[in-house]
Amino acid sequence: MNEIHEECGVFGIACGSTQDVVGPVYYGLYALQHRGQENCGIAVCDDGCLHCYKQAGLVGEVFSPAVRAQLGQGNMAVGHVRYGTTGGSDVRNAQPIMVNHKNGRMALVHNGNLANAGQLRAKLEERGAIFHTASDSEIVAYLITQERLKSPSIEEAVRRAARRLRGAYSLIVLSPTKMIAVRDPHAFRPLCFGRRADGAFVVASESCALDAVGASFIRDVKAGEMLVFDGSGVRSLFVGGGRPTPCIFEYIYFARPDSVIDGISVHEARRRAGRLLAEAYPVKADVVVGVPDSGIDAALGYAEAAHIPFDTGLVKNKYIGRTFIEPAAAQRQNDVRIKLNALRSAVAGKRVVLIDDSIVRGTTIGKIVSLLKEAGARQVHLRICSPPFLFPCYYGTDIDSRENLIACKHSPEEIAKIVGADSLGYLPGGKLHKMVPLPRTCRACFDGKYPTRICENASKDKFEQKLGVLSRLQEDTSATARPSIQE
Amino acid sequence: MNEIHEECGVFGIACGSTQDVVGPVYYGLYALQHRGQENCGIAVCDDGCLHCYKQAGLVGEVFSPAVRAQLGQGNMAVGHVRYGTTGGSDVRNAQPIMVNHKNGRMALVHNGNLANAGQLRAKLEERGAIFHTASDSEIVAYLITQERLKSPSIEEAVRRAARRLRGAYSLIVLSPTKMIAVRDPHAFRPLCFGRRADGAFVVASESCALDAVGASFIRDVKAGEMLVFDGSGVRSLFVGGGRPTPCIFEYIYFARPDSVIDGISVHEARRRAGRLLAEAYPVKADVVVGVPDSGIDAALGYAEAAHIPFDTGLVKNKYIGRTFIEPAAAQRQNDVRIKLNALRSAVAGKRVVLIDDSIVRGTTIGKIVSLLKEAGARQVHLRICSPPFLFPCYYGTDIDSRENLIACKHSPEEIAKIVGADSLGYLPGGKLHKMVPLPRTCRACFDGKYPTRICENASKDKFEQKLGVLSRLQEDTSATARPSIQE
Amino acid sequence: MNEIHEECGVFGIACGSTQDVVGPVYYGLYALQHRGQENCGIAVCDDGCLHCYKQAGLVGEVFSPAVRAQLGQGNMAVGHVRYGTTGGSDVRNAQPIMVNHKNGRMALVHNGNLANAGQLRAKLEERGAIFHTASDSEIVAYLITQERLKSPSIEEAVRRAARRLRGAYSLIVLSPTKMIAVRDPHAFRPLCFGRRADGAFVVASESCALDAVGASFIRDVKAGEMLVFDGSGVRSLFVGGGRPTPCIFEYIYFARPDSVIDGISVHEARRRAGRLLAEAYPVKADVVVGVPDSGIDAALGYAEAAHIPFDTGLVKNKYIGRTFIEPAAAQRQNDVRIKLNALRSAVAGKRVVLIDDSIVRGTTIGKIVSLLKEAGARQVHLRICSPPFLFPCYYGTDIDSRENLIACKHSPEEIAKIVGADSLGYLPGGKLHKMVPLPRTCRACFDGKYPTRICENASKDKFEQKLGVLSRLQEDTSATARPSIQE
Amino acid sequence: MNEIHEECGVFGIACGSTQDVVGPVYYGLYALQHRGQENCGIAVCDDGCLHCYKQAGLVGEVFSPAVRAQLGQGNMAVGHVRYGTTGGSDVRNAQPIMVNHKNGRMALVHNGNLANAGQLRAKLEERGAIFHTASDSEIVAYLITQERLKSPSIEEAVRRAARRLRGAYSLIVLSPTKMIAVRDPHAFRPLCFGRRADGAFVVASESCALDAVGASFIRDVKAGEMLVFDGSGVRSLFVGGGRPTPCIFEYIYFARPDSVIDGISVHEARRRAGRLLAEAYPVKADVVVGVPDSGIDAALGYAEAAHIPFDTGLVKNKYIGRTFIEPAAAQRQNDVRIKLNALRSAVAGKRVVLIDDSIVRGTTIGKIVSLLKEAGARQVHLRICSPPFLFPCYYGTDIDSRENLIACKHSPEEIAKIVGADSLGYLPGGKLHKMVPLPRTCRACFDGKYPTRICENASKDKFEQKLGVLSRLQEDTSATARPSIQE
Repeated sequence: MNEIHEECGVFGIACGSTQDVVGPVYYGLYALQHRGQENCGIAVCDDGCLHCYKQAGLVGEVFSPAVRAQLGQGNMAVGHVRYGTTGGSDVRNAQPIMVNHKNGRMALVHNGNLANAGQLRAKLEERGAIFHTASDSEIVAYLITQERLKSPSIEEAVRRAARRLRGAYSLIVLSPTKMIAVRDPHAFRPLCFGRRADGAFVVASESCALDAVGASFIRDVKAGEMLVFDGSGVRSLFVGGGRPTPCIFEYIYFARPDSVIDGISVHEARRRAGRLLAEAYPVKADVVVGVPDSGIDAALGYAEAAHIPFDTGLVKNKYIGRTFIEPAAAQRQNDVRIKLNALRSAVAGKRVVLIDDSIVRGTTIGKIVSLLKEAGARQVHLRICSPPFLFPCYYGTDIDSRENLIACKHSPEEIAKIVGADSLGYLPGGKLHKMVPLPRTCRACFDGKYPTRICENASKDKFEQKLGVLSRLQEDTSATARPSIQE
Repeated sequence: MNEIHEECGVFGIACGSTQDVVGPVYYGLYALQHRGQENCGIAVCDDGCLHCYKQAGLVGEVFSPAVRAQLGQGNMAVGHVRYGTTGGSDVRNAQPIMVNHKNGRMALVHNGNLANAGQLRAKLEERGAIFHTASDSEIVAYLITQERLKSPSIEEAVRRAARRLRGAYSLIVLSPTKMIAVRDPHAFRPLCFGRRADGAFVVASESCALDAVGASFIRDVKAGEMLVFDGSGVRSLFVGGGRPTPCIFEYIYFARPDSVIDGISVHEARRRAGRLLAEAYPVKADVVVGVPDSGIDAALGYAEAAHIPFDTGLVKNKYIGRTFIEPAAAQRQNDVRIKLNALRSAVAGKRVVLIDDSIVRGTTIGKIVSLLKEAGARQVHLRICSPPFLFPCYYGTDIDSRENLIACKHSPEEIAKIVGADSLGYLPGGKLHKMVPLPRTCRACFDGKYPTRICENASKDKFEQKLGVLSRLQEDTSATARPSIQE
Repeated sequence: MNEIHEECGVFGIACGSTQDVVGPVYYGLYALQHRGQENCGIAVCDDGCLHCYKQAGLVGEVFSPAVRAQLGQGNMAVGHVRYGTTGGSDVRNAQPIMVNHKNGRMALVHNGNLANAGQLRAKLEERGAIFHTASDSEIVAYLITQERLKSPSIEEAVRRAARRLRGAYSLIVLSPTKMIAVRDPHAFRPLCFGRRADGAFVVASESCALDAVGASFIRDVKAGEMLVFDGSGVRSLFVGGGRPTPCIFEYIYFARPDSVIDGISVHEARRRAGRLLAEAYPVKADVVVGVPDSGIDAALGYAEAAHIPFDTGLVKNKYIGRTFIEPAAAQRQNDVRIKLNALRSAVAGKRVVLIDDSIVRGTTIGKIVSLLKEAGARQVHLRICSPPFLFPCYYGTDIDSRENLIACKHSPEEIAKIVGADSLGYLPGGKLHKMVPLPRTCRACFDGKYPTRICENASKDKFEQKLGVLSRLQEDTSATARPSIQE
Repeated sequence: MNEIHEECGVFGIACGSTQDVVGPVYYGLYALQHRGQENCGIAVCDDGCLHCYKQAGLVGEVFSPAVRAQLGQGNMAVGHVRYGTTGGSDVRNAQPIMVNHKNGRMALVHNGNLANAGQLRAKLEERGAIFHTASDSEIVAYLITQERLKSPSIEEAVRRAARRLRGAYSLIVLSPTKMIAVRDPHAFRPLCFGRRADGAFVVASESCALDAVGASFIRDVKAGEMLVFDGSGVRSLFVGGGRPTPCIFEYIYFARPDSVIDGISVHEARRRAGRLLAEAYPVKADVVVGVPDSGIDAALGYAEAAHIPFDTGLVKNKYIGRTFIEPAAAQRQNDVRIKLNALRSAVAGKRVVLIDDSIVRGTTIGKIVSLLKEAGARQVHLRICSPPFLFPCYYGTDIDSRENLIACKHSPEEIAKIVGADSLGYLPGGKLHKMVPLPRTCRACFDGKYPTRICENASKDKFEQKLGVLSRLQEDTSATARPSIQE
């Protein structure tokens, strides 16, 4: 029930010979769909020639059998799913980004956000560059293309470009002869690779996508590492010295529970969060209930540690999708009811421990607490699998603005009161290293300690507000024709 | 992960005055979406004048804010969701069925199947009737219209028509001045009603839809009962003596866990099924895993009774929708991987008890067992929450044909071997009354004891096969334009 | 530039063996597209089995290669194009009408309007019939189906049904083994047939459609004649004694100039109209200009008879299609400019004779006169190829209501003044027999002498007004998804 | 019936205050639709802020009332219609091109082709530029943007950029405060301007678009002239010394007959072509017939000069649009029949003079000659309003490749034989100056004398062939969702 969005998932495959590479990317993107639902794309390299199809919509909608058939065979391919933070489902922002330059063709997919996007873009524009999108990924494409003019190889161009980037990037670049995967020196966003039984190499944002195509997991891409895949195999190079600080929010919310990131199972991390909460905030209760989907694993952990029965206390309507339009103001109170229903027989007359992954504005969890109480819960004790959100993220997580973050304005006691809970416990920041036992993680959204220097983004101008209105109109009037709107 | 489909969900609302009645029906149908995903429709009665909008697609796709706004206000409305067994998503089969006859206008929604459809239709055609669809519901509409010619009131016409029907029907009829709900004398399909705080009456296939619109549950409609709602209140009449035999498969698979049907919580029935399986087929194991979504509750029950830990051992891809196209033959083995992934850390090295609701062909469950074994499960003990399927259903459940039902050809021991399980236990038929403690239920698909006389349907002819091909084509080439195809 | 609409065009083909019959119907309907642009459909008979595809849109839009391929081969086929007078482009009203009755399957296409539709429908409803559309064609289908129950053959059923019809009907019926074409005893609407070199018989509303499929014209279907095509050839029967009164407006406006109807070339009839106008209303002028497209031929005739040069004085924008939305009120004056432009060099400083086919409200022709004057025409002498419209049509022509017909309220002199013309001449009614030299024609819209008895239609009720609103909305928001809307 | 395509039409409006500027551009583009039917776009400048909507489709399809309403008001706007020579209806190639650079925002529309596109592009890429399309217009946008970095004003940047261009360009640039129109020093493509009664200035490819918005024609933009429109009025500057050589093919085929270009009426030029043909190639005949639409005016001229009656001998199906799919091979012979039909009564038994604008491959005209002969024409004497095509065009006309041009391989006598004509006369090159009495025109496609130096384009590579296949697929499967396809 979270309102936080990440922006991307990436997937790539490199085979020794021409074959169906679109199929695996399709299944891989299906497995990564939770990382972005606005638009998606696949680029295929067929004997040195690159072609691409991208469109607004879910993977299964966009890549119909006819489209997949026409993309044809190849020896390499990359794909991307994207959550659109600006301009709605504008397909112009879709990836792969295709570059068709006299010095080389290239397809690029990117997950992450740059902390120095503003400076890089300004410098490129001073040299005459024209940008077609507002995305950081176009900056990366420009830098690689410019470095390519003076580099002996595409990997060297990628390496040089990478050195100018600051922030989060998990990249896959397809040149006519190579597939190159890079993870930034802080390893903010996940990236791993594996191999299919037939020898094809596969790179993906999360290991669940390797499972989906029947590939065995080899290892995570290291911080600052660049992997170069060509017909003969894979080489490991480095674009910069890494001191990894992976994003902890991947474990709390973003990633699929069946993924293993940097050696840590997401499912187990969430169970541990539940156990740690049970230790930190024990309570006498009759049942432990998780907010689906991300709160379920932690609820199992809490139940186990606290010796309180777990039960399915909330049922989620699995048909609520992108098409769900919020009800009119008069029925606003009602809206959580459409997405969730309390299971009366599981909670009536009981003291309930309710587990959720995080709290942003507090509005949704407040409605869930009401739902349980109306269904007869005697008490609702809220336990949250993360510390309070206090700071913005500059590495690709789209959290709300500070004025909307409830924890910036209220103490936990006040929040409990506001949302109607009988008690509230956040996972203490000091326990995060037990939840995700890595040497370092980025938890800047909780403690404000950013692993890189930051330059603030300019606020959106009048034009972009206009654009927003136009985009919304179009989504509304016509779900099928998704026109390209430009500033 | 079941391949069994029911055909419909119905919802109706009757208010004392003109207001937004489309909103409640929209939310009600959203809550009933699991009962049918092919097409849906809403008919509104505004001051005696009936109008309707219906279309192929999910509720959220079809009823955009613009469509809802234009349907406008009214004092009564009915809605329907449908799973299309014939002709795919052909919108001609969508409901409400609208009748615009000189003797009266009417909108009708229907859940269920008639056992005497063939005879009734033949008799009507002999009198010159022309049918536009192959659906039983059109027969019902015809009978009511014909009885209306000689009946003093619409409820009398409905009552006379109902007496000629044999089989399952949960009906809602909207006349210009009344809303009439009928449940057949065997009460095969569920139907209940409730009331909102503002006095509006609401009728729905399942109680979860009452929750979705904030209505309090009053009671289930009784076997053979007809409720007549008009401006002033509700009257209860009877269309026939009832000896209720509700469908037990509603509890096993169809209904939402948060619904309560004929006084029995679906969630609790499933937990009981798990406990009964633990008693009937105990096994030494390390973890209990349910096949999502319908096997989860039973897995919790089994875990509790057997004192074995429950865990999330399988993760379902929540984006697999109607758009998912099965992979080409070469990758067939792979397909369950796209929908489900084993959670390695939860099952590796463990003896797993795997719970599912039922087995049809055995293909899917066989792949799930493989998935778990590949993820390192040492043993997989399969437990099924229902007895083996042995007989067809004539009351609205679309089970496979007998030649495809694995239990018709193999013993449980053979099935265990075929699907790769280390043991297999079906819920014994003798325990069904403990799972669903009602005086009688229809369990004909397990024991062949049909509560009514049956007339077999003729097999599909050449034409309908053609039609099928054409329908499929159209789904394929154009998801947006859903043309009407006729025989 | 006429605002008058006819409702249909029909086409059928019967071959000796299975082959591509969809192709010819497709090309035939393309040639008849001017008779209806709202929706269209084709039904194929393949070895006794009938299937159909129909949809809102132009022939070229609806019948994509994929749809045509899937309709497949057959030995007979019929098609229809329709102008929607009620309910906009509602595909429910599209034809062929398919009947799937135990006593026989049938596809039916129909051009024309019944004068006794109201009585027939009421009688059928009294016997329990349910109508799904408001169209006369469904009444015809019902009557044939009912007669079929007691007739020895389909042609006998058609004959008996035809005897109950009063008014205009050019019908083609496809049974599993025969194609039957019928033209009403007054021969109001055109219908002709021909033969391809390979022996296949072709029936069409106009001879231009025979040309389009390379068939040689044999003859017009006679008044009251029924042609029965089966594998072995064609038989001629009669459904009633005919005293033909073909619609004269087919020659004035509806039909394509390259068609020949009842032995009269439409092009020549229009040239004659021009010549007759030159005799009846001579004037001193410098150039003769026709309003495209239907005024061009008459302008050539006038120019020739009056020895005044013909020139292209008005250029029509050929891209103005169904998508053209009238400008906002402020620009209303402007709208004819978008559709037509005056050719300054052809008219500046000249005395212009302007020829149009007819005048309905007078608004459009007034704007055209202004256009010419603004382009420098010194005088504009308006000549109209028909007498003034004074009476409604009950046989399939959708003229405006009497209160909107300018000729019902004003004398020709007044009209000339209103539209800004320097003089105005209507083709005298007494000359119509010279324009179309047939023994009798129906010219009831000019003189009110209806060849049959008439029963007035009831006015539209509140509900249909609602429907109208809803339809318009949908056209507006989504040109691609054309949902079925029902009362 | 020509197979030659031009690539663009442009339109712009500049008002003194904020008002509806989208309406006039919409009507202007409607009037210019014949110059490009693949995609279209409009950019609006509202108080310094630019926004744009562009999409594949006809003007009337793309700019629905909702889209127009949301584009909103402004004080300036530009629009574009485009015929897509590469990549089909790929919306990425649509214009206006929007540039959002730190040094300035800009919208640009362009008609024409550069003769030095290859060199300019290579030089820009060497400096690191990335191109998103294959269009010359993007090169122009890049050059202006680069010059803008070092220019004191946008008009100076446009002037400097223009000096680097060689070839045909009629440009309109919208900056936040100015609208700038430029016509290249050879004045290859037309461009004119006018003024509405309310003082708003209007620029358009052809004068017919001024008529469509009620603006008075002021004059053509001069060769090498740049007009700068701002709130206060218009200034005339020059980007280079002009020696105008306007394209003569605009008069022969491209332009609308109601346009006046560089002082010459297109309609009159065509009539003169007919008269010149009558003088050069007189013949005894009974009727003169023009191939619609572009041959009609010349046929009137021929008829007049030769004193032979003109008649409508060919009727064009006005519904054949972009949706028309050529028939399968077996019916190939048939295809002209769908688009054209001979008017038997006008040609049977007669000696026909047939006038067309030009001959490319000869296939179409051959079929038209057959059509007339099958309709009974005794003789067909073909007269062509232009000399034979012998050379490619580098200034924006998409003629076929030389190996397909029938005149490159055959003498007029041979061609007459091939197409079945009894005689053939091309307008002699030496008469072109009488048809279009301007000091100089570009007639390089006839005589190979190019007004500028030329650099040949590289041939299309394997990739672009692939792309073509993919585009076609998409047009086929989904007319509504027009996805962006990239290399």
